[in-house]
Amino acid sequence: MNSYILKGDICYTPSIDKLLTYPDSYLICESGRTKGIFENIPDEYSECTVYDYSGMLIIPGLVDLHIHAPQFPFRGTGMDCELTEWLNKYTFPCEEKYRDPVYAEKAYCIFAEHIKKSATTHAVILSTVHRHSTELLMDLMEETGIVSFTGKVNMDRNAPDSLCEKNTDETVSWLKNISGKYSRTYPIITPRFAPCCSSGFLNDISGIRRKYSLPVQSHLSENTREVKWVNELFPECEFYGDVYEKHNLFGYDRNTQNGFRTVMAHCVYSSDKELSLIKKNNVFIAHCPSSNTNLRSGIAPVRKYLELGLKTGLGSDVAAGHTESVLHAACEAVRMSKLYNIYCDTSAAPLTFTEAFYLATKGGGEFFSEVNNGFPAGTFEPGGNFSAVVINDTAIPSPDVYTLSQRLERAAYLSADAQYIMAKFAEGVKII
Amino acid sequence: MNSYILKGDICYTPSIDKLLTYPDSYLICESGRTKGIFENIPDEYSECTVYDYSGMLIIPGLVDLHIHAPQFPFRGTGMDCELTEWLNKYTFPCEEKYRDPVYAEKAYCIFAEHIKKSATTHAVILSTVHRHSTELLMDLMEETGIVSFTGKVNMDRNAPDSLCEKNTDETVSWLKNISGKYSRTYPIITPRFAPCCSSGFLNDISGIRRKYSLPVQSHLSENTREVKWVNELFPECEFYGDVYEKHNLFGYDRNTQNGFRTVMAHCVYSSDKELSLIKKNNVFIAHCPSSNTNLRSGIAPVRKYLELGLKTGLGSDVAAGHTESVLHAACEAVRMSKLYNIYCDTSAAPLTFTEAFYLATKGGGEFFSEVNNGFPAGTFEPGGNFSAVVINDTAIPSPDVYTLSQRLERAAYLSADAQYIMAKFAEGVKII
Repeated sequence: MNSYILKGDICYTPSIDKLLTYPDSYLICESGRTKGIFENIPDEYSECTVYDYSGMLIIPGLVDLHIHAPQFPFRGTGMDCELTEWLNKYTFPCEEKYRDPVYAEKAYCIFAEHIKKSATTHAVILSTVHRHSTELLMDLMEETGIVSFTGKVNMDRNAPDSLCEKNTDETVSWLKNISGKYSRTYPIITPRFAPCCSSGFLNDISGIRRKYSLPVQSHLSENTREVKWVNELFPECEFYGDVYEKHNLFGYDRNTQNGFRTVMAHCVYSSDKELSLIKKNNVFIAHCPSSNTNLRSGIAPVRKYLELGLKTGLGSDVAAGHTESVLHAACEAVRMSKLYNIYCDTSAAPLTFTEAFYLATKGGGEFFSEVNNGFPAGTFEPGGNFSAVVINDTAIPSPDVYTLSQRLERAAYLSADAQYIMAKFAEGVKII
Repeated sequence: MNSYILKGDICYTPSIDKLLTYPDSYLICESGRTKGIFENIPDEYSECTVYDYSGMLIIPGLVDLHIHAPQFPFRGTGMDCELTEWLNKYTFPCEEKYRDPVYAEKAYCIFAEHIKKSATTHAVILSTVHRHSTELLMDLMEETGIVSFTGKVNMDRNAPDSLCEKNTDETVSWLKNISGKYSRTYPIITPRFAPCCSSGFLNDISGIRRKYSLPVQSHLSENTREVKWVNELFPECEFYGDVYEKHNLFGYDRNTQNGFRTVMAHCVYSSDKELSLIKKNNVFIAHCPSSNTNLRSGIAPVRKYLELGLKTGLGSDVAAGHTESVLHAACEAVRMSKLYNIYCDTSAAPLTFTEAFYLATKGGGEFFSEVNNGFPAGTFEPGGNFSAVVINDTAIPSPDVYTLSQRLERAAYLSADAQYIMAKFAEGVKII
């Protein structure tokens, strides 16, 4: 019986505009699932172990909808580039190194160690085209205890030869090799982005997706030049997202008439038509504010996503984003939405911190519901597998007393997730 | 003889477009002053103590041109506000607490401890209107070993009564009390900003400035509403900066025809006329990118400052800026200049990291030349008092080897200054 109780100052966002706070309360995990929050320990749980985190913040595990594990080593460097230059100068040369399993092990061990120590409990991860190193990454992710969708990247053009695949054989081998191997590490189909995949290759990828009933991740409308390039590469498609749609990789398979989980990073320059299709197909948007600024892409219209009711979460997008901290991404989402309000659309209200925290938790957490007993991750509502992070913000000295809501905001802005994580639970298990 | 040698990977920016890097070299401090960088230890220094920081980054001490010490406790909270709401809801209520010396001691001890541990060696600091707590802050700053200009705030209107002064008596008492007391903590005249000071009061402040030959710090053209408000409050002045100019508080005293050191925070909305006067009067701009985004002020036209040859440095502007890290401010200066390029002026090239690092060091460091033997702080060029920071970035595990320039950029983006500072020297003295 994987049951226990966490005592402390608890907060979470059941909906986007509501931050619930429970000072000095009890959060119960029963048989690995979230039971609820209580002022006092109910009698039937009086025998349970209590982890006493009095005075500390207890929040749901954070959800990173978009992170490139192989790029972790060079995070924080090469930040003076735009997307295309950055891909050719930093990303592709870096990713080529993962052909070598010795390098891959060294690099992925560092990544796994950092992500384990972070506040992230759920992540959607891209590796490289290399099968061996992707399997190694999945082994390491499983060991961390973090729940992830991890995808071997597919591409067959517009990249160095050594990173271009001739067919999808390696992808099939990868899926066969890992089948049944993990309890919390799931495969995801990962065409890098439309410019790096020919139409025939996308069809092959799509066939594999269908055969193995997998979700999909990719990039969409990140940068104006990229959008233009996709229009040139796929003149038969109406807009960028239509490329994925026409190849049955955009949340809906016209061959089987089945929907499937899909997440697209960025969507900074999605047209209204593209946004409509995103909505119709229940595609998730991984909003990556830090990356969009670093690579000079622009500011994504998050308020518009929310008003349209699009499924939205946050992505750290390491290494275009310079840190794996999803709390940092939440603050950046707020900060960039302020500038969007000034410079792009004065009618688009800036995000509140509560809204950004929702995106960082339950917003992205809904992507995981299929592997979470049908409940979203990133929340303390009863039902789903239990995930939680304890931030010891008593380590931030202060002459004043703050509310839970203020403490949460402060912990996020001061990146307290990096330094002050006291404990972390994922899928009911204490992993830190 | 305060002489010694630092061994390690040394970098600094003698000019805005040039980052010099000296792997595995020797940086010599002779009699408290910077001597230079050498490949090998020259014979005449062979008896000097060598601090061996091999493999670590050695950079000049960082310069913070604008930080509000009393606001440090609430940094990272209240970030959903604009300037005026933020002043009334957070800042003024917080500053009122410094009337109580017990509170002030508690709060300022925390501030001093943090700033000491940061990479900052030189700072221009605002306190509150309270004389006692300002003196306490100066005592504490002197103890840290950091070189600072610290100013008691002046205001007589548009603030809570308890923060409004009736005259400048307390300011005179403050200056008398601290006269000759410190070796590295200097007073600076600090009218909070034009809206909080009546014309008569500004004249009184200006008289004190003249009498004591002091430098000046204040705020300028931070926010469109504030600029409009100043125009209403001072209809006789041509533009915001003209208010300070007309009261002889803007780098030049028409009564004595003497120039004096002045730093103005923000200048986001300075008109061309204002910028011309800034240039003419050698006024320094404290560019505070983090604050300008947090308070929804906008993005300052830094490229324009540089093209005009204005004296520019960086300010953390705690607590509108959420962190005291000047390396963070440098990264934000780069990041925000990218958005300025996209949304405000496509002809304004984004800052490079080298340019931002220059602003964070020698750019702001020039403000200190009068108290630094006539040499700018923030550089390893020979002559000035020696200041340096050692960042142990070997603590950032990586499968790759990076150049010094990449390591510096990475350290800045990963806020390695907060976690990995191994040693710090200011005015020739090892203070960490």
